[in-house]
Amino acid sequence: MDKQHLHRQFDNDLNEIRSKLLEMGGKVEKMISDALKALLERDSVLADQVIAYDHEINRMEMEIDEKCLEVLAMRQPAARDLRFITLALKIVTDLERIGDQCRNIGKSTKELNDEPPLKPFIDIPRMAHWAGIMVKEALDAFVEGDVDLALKVCRDDSFIDELNVQMQRELLSFMIEDPKTISRSIKINYISKCLERISDHATNIAEMVIFMVNGKDIRHTAVS
Amino acid sequence: MDKQHLHRQFDNDLNEIRSKLLEMGGKVEKMISDALKALLERDSVLADQVIAYDHEINRMEMEIDEKCLEVLAMRQPAARDLRFITLALKIVTDLERIGDQCRNIGKSTKELNDEPPLKPFIDIPRMAHWAGIMVKEALDAFVEGDVDLALKVCRDDSFIDELNVQMQRELLSFMIEDPKTISRSIKINYISKCLERISDHATNIAEMVIFMVNGKDIRHTAVS
Repeated sequence: MDKQHLHRQFDNDLNEIRSKLLEMGGKVEKMISDALKALLERDSVLADQVIAYDHEINRMEMEIDEKCLEVLAMRQPAARDLRFITLALKIVTDLERIGDQCRNIGKSTKELNDEPPLKPFIDIPRMAHWAGIMVKEALDAFVEGDVDLALKVCRDDSFIDELNVQMQRELLSFMIEDPKTISRSIKINYISKCLERISDHATNIAEMVIFMVNGKDIRHTAVS
Repeated sequence: MDKQHLHRQFDNDLNEIRSKLLEMGGKVEKMISDALKALLERDSVLADQVIAYDHEINRMEMEIDEKCLEVLAMRQPAARDLRFITLALKIVTDLERIGDQCRNIGKSTKELNDEPPLKPFIDIPRMAHWAGIMVKEALDAFVEGDVDLALKVCRDDSFIDELNVQMQRELLSFMIEDPKTISRSIKINYISKCLERISDHATNIAEMVIFMVNGKDIRHTAVS
């Protein structure tokens, strides 16, 4: 094979990893919105579908891992490409764990559906909405190598953190006023925490993207 | 340089990654036991030290990441060695997040210390003890390529999960009986969840080790 042909093959490999990651990201975003829908509409059938769908996310993780290892072994990439592939390996782990969080939301939703509703959800839909956007933008930042977008994701994280704290405070007052609400409040609190963890994973991805592009590490340093 | 010399250098590189990972693991184990000690002895100074120490874990993550990238770029390893290095990249991420959980326990401990004690801790020390062992064994399984030990870690995870569920149930009954305990119960519940997440990270590491050694993926399939 001539050099140009090899080069083209390598580009194809990178594009395949890129598009598989975006596909996995899209599936994870769908899981987040379905988990929210199941919660808002008290739809246990949909919650079951979200729980079952986690297998598909796990399958994709293994598929992308294998592809990355194959490219590392066959093409022996250097510098930027190497950083791209090792980062892809880390990102799939975050995506897979976002899938786990959606599955957890699905499970709590089913439990909540066995009891009367506590109150209309206001902050949870906002958190889920933003968490989904953060995941999408973190992956876009990855495939485009867009540091500005990645920095935006890092900044947005504090907004979700605030909503989660606000949520906890509100649920605490419910529980103190009426102990009968404790069991439900704890489950809703758990869902709020799951969404916060999803946004943490998106932030982890964004921080790693900034690392990849700039070649220096902003992880574990203040961003805002 | 002759081939043998290159080979020796490569071995040195792998050994360096191996020993740095074990060093990071040791530091993380120390964080877990210090976080527990700070909780049991109501020692906010130690809790502050645990929180501050998270920086050291973050620093080590970046150091090991860089070393792995360097080895991938310079030595272009194949097959088993490649799998080892890419796995090391994933494992440091888990270790770093265990550090985050210890920091979270430190923060909750400080808040708990502002209020009178709720009850003597029984299950939390057991969870912390087992979580620490799981982290140690998962890393030992990694450096030794020991599948049996990795399988043991995966099995132990369900024990911690059970303790966490038991803990939640007990705290729930406290809260229902006496709403004044709600705020403290929620914080203790959070600490219990942090320990459960630490054991999840150890399990993730163990599952990846089995994958590395067997070359096939037991992640996301039943183990016990």
